[in-house]
Amino acid sequence: MTTARIHDFFATRRPASPCLVVDLDVVHDNYKAFEKALPDSRIYYAVKANPAPEILRLLATLGSSFDTASVAEIEMALEAGATPDRISFGNTIKKERDIARAHELGISLFAVDCVEEVEKVARAAPGARVFCRVLTDGEGAEWPLSRKFGCVPAMAVDVLAQAARLGLDAYGVSFHVGSQMTNLDAWDKALADARMVFEAMLEKGIQLKMVNMGGGFPTRYLKDVPSAQAYGRAIFDALRKHFGNRIPETIIEPGRGMVGNAGVIKSEVVLVSKKSDNDNVRWVYLDIGKFGGLAETMDEAIRYNIVTDRDGDASEPCVLAGPTCDSADVMYEKNPYPLPLTLTVGDEVLIEGTGAYTTTYSAVAFNGFEPLKSYVI
Amino acid sequence: MTTARIHDFFATRRPASPCLVVDLDVVHDNYKAFEKALPDSRIYYAVKANPAPEILRLLATLGSSFDTASVAEIEMALEAGATPDRISFGNTIKKERDIARAHELGISLFAVDCVEEVEKVARAAPGARVFCRVLTDGEGAEWPLSRKFGCVPAMAVDVLAQAARLGLDAYGVSFHVGSQMTNLDAWDKALADARMVFEAMLEKGIQLKMVNMGGGFPTRYLKDVPSAQAYGRAIFDALRKHFGNRIPETIIEPGRGMVGNAGVIKSEVVLVSKKSDNDNVRWVYLDIGKFGGLAETMDEAIRYNIVTDRDGDASEPCVLAGPTCDSADVMYEKNPYPLPLTLTVGDEVLIEGTGAYTTTYSAVAFNGFEPLKSYVI
Repeated sequence: MTTARIHDFFATRRPASPCLVVDLDVVHDNYKAFEKALPDSRIYYAVKANPAPEILRLLATLGSSFDTASVAEIEMALEAGATPDRISFGNTIKKERDIARAHELGISLFAVDCVEEVEKVARAAPGARVFCRVLTDGEGAEWPLSRKFGCVPAMAVDVLAQAARLGLDAYGVSFHVGSQMTNLDAWDKALADARMVFEAMLEKGIQLKMVNMGGGFPTRYLKDVPSAQAYGRAIFDALRKHFGNRIPETIIEPGRGMVGNAGVIKSEVVLVSKKSDNDNVRWVYLDIGKFGGLAETMDEAIRYNIVTDRDGDASEPCVLAGPTCDSADVMYEKNPYPLPLTLTVGDEVLIEGTGAYTTTYSAVAFNGFEPLKSYVI
Repeated sequence: MTTARIHDFFATRRPASPCLVVDLDVVHDNYKAFEKALPDSRIYYAVKANPAPEILRLLATLGSSFDTASVAEIEMALEAGATPDRISFGNTIKKERDIARAHELGISLFAVDCVEEVEKVARAAPGARVFCRVLTDGEGAEWPLSRKFGCVPAMAVDVLAQAARLGLDAYGVSFHVGSQMTNLDAWDKALADARMVFEAMLEKGIQLKMVNMGGGFPTRYLKDVPSAQAYGRAIFDALRKHFGNRIPETIIEPGRGMVGNAGVIKSEVVLVSKKSDNDNVRWVYLDIGKFGGLAETMDEAIRYNIVTDRDGDASEPCVLAGPTCDSADVMYEKNPYPLPLTLTVGDEVLIEGTGAYTTTYSAVAFNGFEPLKSYVI
């Protein structure tokens, strides 16, 4: 998963460790794969996954739209060349003044999940299109979404009806099956719920137009995952099953699936040690950890693929930890990570599949360490 | 715990939300309380808790020394007016080139917890003083330290003996009872271990000189905690018990205890909603969360005191969440937080006891949100 271009960059540029390198060719291929797999869906790249300007510019050129979480992300998407009609303000939790600012910038598509949010949008962005996020159970996702976003389908009907009453365009529903979702049936269940909302709204005389199928498209970490095309087929089948010949406009919001496998973090082994002479587990400390960009190892949720020059030597499971003075800065301890016994201080390791949710997750200055440096090539 | 000075700052300056305000008078009082409670110990402020230049300058003026985690923190302490002899490089996980840089800057006191680290220090900072961190069990701490730092006492003897062989000054031992430790007996157990190491080293003809008793001094969150003086007494009694009339030089490294209760975060309610009509728990979304500075709510470890203008109205437990599109950005869900039923969008809330581990923990740009702003008054 470390491409030849990335290998070449490390070899010739020798950037200081730790750093992330993202290969735009992989992002390009991912975009094309999504386009091919779901030719009838519009692609809204989830900017939060990696807002590097080079990535946004490439995707804008390819024709992508953008899912944004804040005014700052809206501005980045505009800066990259996206027109306002290609930008969705997809955060269900927005300050009214941020909605107003987005409206000023020309954004006309907003996520909501309760009447209180609809009221804010009606006041600050009159006439805008809104879609209501519906709760799904997210079973099968490696990074489960809990109940933070969305409401039950029955409530979504009330929310959208209220939107229409307040002069907004009740435009559709959204769901998110959970990040890094590997269970293809998850979309079927969510689309059944979406159709229910469409029907209930039609009974009120309102024709919804769009289903936002969110993200959840996985990147390959250690396990193989179904390819984008298998996802596409499963989703198209579910759409056909629930909406028959009246398939609505659909959008998808890949984030991790667009950039995850495009990035590799180079890190350095700072220390390898044991806690006692008769300890049977080594501790391997890297110069990057939970607070330097690998926040998604929280609860050991995401297990990255780690490559060393000593792979092939005898290995043993190790505890893998970061360089800060924070005891929570341990990445894999419950499920220790097998690493070569010969691995030693100063060795370089590559942490693959780290293009998403790393640079922006990194702490601003924890323990005095700088945020993760990033190179987009 | 929101001081009159902080209230006045909010009232007159009306800073944008979210932000942290730290009252230097409280830091001053905390320093004096530590000095009074442990008059024979040198105070090394743990810079990582809050490295704001104003705080470092105040403490440097008061005579504090500094415990640092990185070269950047060493430079901040020097900048604030501390001389190199008042700075300890307290991270047990250091790159050799960072040790060399610290040595160049005049730092001569280093933490280690294994032979591999001793070898780096011997090469990069010849002749320096080293202390070896010993594992304690950290029982009773709200933010437990796991086994990431330190080695068992028997191994500490080998580590310090090796340091002496390599020409370093085997200076002492350190321990850390765990952050926010409220069990006064924890120090007794750790000091018993420290004495064991002193005796074993003496048998090798090496007289250790120092015990670094680390941090762990709690700040007041929701529960009352023993005062600094009670801590001082308990620690002095334990030192007397284990070292008799030959009490070594001691240092302490308060971080949270020095600045935690000096800071208050002002936040704004962005949304209050339910997930379904028959839900009996409300979701309250603030404009700050786990990625904006409240990382220590991870696993609901730290429970901050939250003050609203509506306190006194009927209240009910709520799920409390942050503003990002990340489902992990939920602060209190397993143990919902009681908040007034009248609390509504746009209300201001004060999150008290947030002077430590907030500004530097905040993500650099997650979801496009800026890092936490901070004012030191």
